[in-house]
Amino acid sequence: MAQKPSIPKGTRDFTPVEMARRNYIFDTIKDVFRLYGFSPIETPAMENLSTLMGKYGEEGDKLLFKILNSGDFLRDVDPALMTSENVTRLAAKLCEKGLRYDLTVPFARFVVMHRNDLQFPFKRYQIQPVWRADRPQKGRYREFYQCDADVVGSDSLLNEIELLEMIDEVFRRLKVRVTIKLNNRKVLAGIAELIGCPDKIINITVAIDKIDKIGLENVRAELLERGIPAEGVERLTPLLTLSGTTAERLSALRELLAGVEIGQKGIDELTEVIEGVEALGIECDLELDVSLARGLNYYTGTIIEVKARDVEIGSITGGGRYDNLTGVFGMPGISGVGISFGADRIYDVLNALDLYPAAVEESVKVMFTNLGKAEAAASLKAAKALRASGISAEVYPDAAKMKKQMSRANELHVPYVAIIGESELAEGKLTLKNMTTGEQSLIAIDELSSAVK
Amino acid sequence: MAQKPSIPKGTRDFTPVEMARRNYIFDTIKDVFRLYGFSPIETPAMENLSTLMGKYGEEGDKLLFKILNSGDFLRDVDPALMTSENVTRLAAKLCEKGLRYDLTVPFARFVVMHRNDLQFPFKRYQIQPVWRADRPQKGRYREFYQCDADVVGSDSLLNEIELLEMIDEVFRRLKVRVTIKLNNRKVLAGIAELIGCPDKIINITVAIDKIDKIGLENVRAELLERGIPAEGVERLTPLLTLSGTTAERLSALRELLAGVEIGQKGIDELTEVIEGVEALGIECDLELDVSLARGLNYYTGTIIEVKARDVEIGSITGGGRYDNLTGVFGMPGISGVGISFGADRIYDVLNALDLYPAAVEESVKVMFTNLGKAEAAASLKAAKALRASGISAEVYPDAAKMKKQMSRANELHVPYVAIIGESELAEGKLTLKNMTTGEQSLIAIDELSSAVK
Repeated sequence: MAQKPSIPKGTRDFTPVEMARRNYIFDTIKDVFRLYGFSPIETPAMENLSTLMGKYGEEGDKLLFKILNSGDFLRDVDPALMTSENVTRLAAKLCEKGLRYDLTVPFARFVVMHRNDLQFPFKRYQIQPVWRADRPQKGRYREFYQCDADVVGSDSLLNEIELLEMIDEVFRRLKVRVTIKLNNRKVLAGIAELIGCPDKIINITVAIDKIDKIGLENVRAELLERGIPAEGVERLTPLLTLSGTTAERLSALRELLAGVEIGQKGIDELTEVIEGVEALGIECDLELDVSLARGLNYYTGTIIEVKARDVEIGSITGGGRYDNLTGVFGMPGISGVGISFGADRIYDVLNALDLYPAAVEESVKVMFTNLGKAEAAASLKAAKALRASGISAEVYPDAAKMKKQMSRANELHVPYVAIIGESELAEGKLTLKNMTTGEQSLIAIDELSSAVK
Repeated sequence: MAQKPSIPKGTRDFTPVEMARRNYIFDTIKDVFRLYGFSPIETPAMENLSTLMGKYGEEGDKLLFKILNSGDFLRDVDPALMTSENVTRLAAKLCEKGLRYDLTVPFARFVVMHRNDLQFPFKRYQIQPVWRADRPQKGRYREFYQCDADVVGSDSLLNEIELLEMIDEVFRRLKVRVTIKLNNRKVLAGIAELIGCPDKIINITVAIDKIDKIGLENVRAELLERGIPAEGVERLTPLLTLSGTTAERLSALRELLAGVEIGQKGIDELTEVIEGVEALGIECDLELDVSLARGLNYYTGTIIEVKARDVEIGSITGGGRYDNLTGVFGMPGISGVGISFGADRIYDVLNALDLYPAAVEESVKVMFTNLGKAEAAASLKAAKALRASGISAEVYPDAAKMKKQMSRANELHVPYVAIIGESELAEGKLTLKNMTTGEQSLIAIDELSSAVK
């Protein structure tokens, strides 16, 4: 009985054309990672739930995919637990393992487990899928790739400078125009201190993070609602309306935060990073944005977010510095800084702007037709010689109708078709058809590699 | 409270050195796949359990990792089912999804779902991890990679010839000496028919498959035990002791199977494949092996198995032709043939023989020391220029002690260290140290890229 197959919602197959486009993005990112001295690692898809639980908040715990224990998974389960009211506790009994939710927690676990074999500062990149039991919607999947690069074991701001250069280089290569927004957690802490609410930093940043969406007046209203005194809101307002060049904004910010030590430290760091990047040269826009509060419960210094300038879409890359990545696993005091490229959104941006080089979709450089046994044998030989010089080739496997064979070459965007028929075979030649121009020429078989190079 | 982290048994982390070695293998395989016109696809890690169950036998069903449904997974479960006696049926209620067990069933599902968008013959490769809840042991993991290449939609033996050439090319590039063993399911069917037990083909092949391990006499005893009449065992014996060249074996086999139509068809196919490969040239040993019965419930024609000649280890690559891959998903009559490289075993072989090129373990080509703020700024500039010419470089992020910086370069097998100190900075020069020879030279900063190329 045949079943009509499907795949789980929120997951995707990738066809050869999609793979070619995605690999173009991944290879670009990987090449930049490599050029900057980052080395790849991989961690297992499954982690112990004890590693994952409690790291992503209560909501995150619910979004973990849990793996049913093998064998008799009920053996040690108290029957009283087996009711709908107890599903959370029951799940913890039925499942020891879960699928990784991001690459950061597995990386922290990796650093702690391999601490004695690693050279610090340790510069790693990791490109692997992650899984979240989120409600699927446009642009949000239950399986998607993350592309992370992190440096751990160094608190030098030189790392921030190089990571920003890497972002610039990746998008320069991909031909995507972007704005890099920059902030520093210490500036946000300084603001909270300035207005006399150092414990309300989360409330403050949640509100000011919305300024692009809801406007200044609504942010002010929300700040009051969230318990910031009116005087504090007044003192904060000029910080939200900084204008001018980056240097001008930095200097205005320094003045507004005068006397607030942590705020001054944040401005020092921002200044060093921005001057460092400008000295090296950067093509994309670099923008100081005090309202940027991304991942605040996590970052302790620099905060980075990247927006595409020509497509309406959320942030396509982000990152920042965190001072206690591995503390939860018993290894305190390790500072790290990292960036994460959102491969799926970058893919959407490249699709929207049609930014793929034409060669990305070529499946094979030369297709040999198959016009019979002896002709195919000669084609196999010629294809082998071509491959030895690094050129991809295929021989149509069946002596099918010529029209069918040529149609395959068209559909697969094959740039050259090589035809060895009876007369070509007799002469040791082949007819080479350029599928772009339609030109045909008769050449010696051993001239083929130079003809298509 | 810090926890001491661990990973699930049977899974592995891959460190940068391990990744470099594994990528060397994967890249070699991918490059050969690409040269032969195979295109990559990817499928989700999670498949619906309805896609996976019943495809790998009862034992396989038990080895599937199942994913607990999200939310209230008990909602529609009959409480009477919640006992240890019913765990199999209960699991089917608690879990809709599972992790893929191999790449073949997801590929079949993919072909059926995308049939209208694919060009047949469809030549795909797929390199992704698979998961099995097997008892972990040396060389057997719960998460491991498969590297498959298949052609579906063509029954031409030209595909077999090219796949064998691909195997030869991969191991030639990896410098691993291998023997490719070849058989054909139709020959096995012919043997079963010859001895009057066409319905006992499985029993026969299970027994003769053991000849290398237990010897001829024990195989004969086992055949009798498995219900093959004594006369049949006598007729079969010469087939198990074929000797001489491949051509001599084929001709002896043809004589022994005289009058058995399916057997003759199998010999015709073997002959065509072997002659085709020999005409193209092959470096490794190609051996006809009538006792080869790999994956018999699955393959319908050619059967391929590859053994390393210099390391004691199971088969490192296998494959064959199957005539009904997609039938179970409602798309009958699609013939396919494929090969699967066992990446983990190939990795073990390369480790055992130490076959990695030295460059595989280089993490970065040039490390710049960090001797202070101005020196580091100049180093960052020089590193950026180097990367623009395709050479990887890093700048030590902190102005640490020189000894510590040089020790990093040593540990990471960095071939060149570039030193910009006070005097170099004043002159626009750098000291380049070749870490292999120990030589040092003072060169202009803009000569660096040509000096290390």
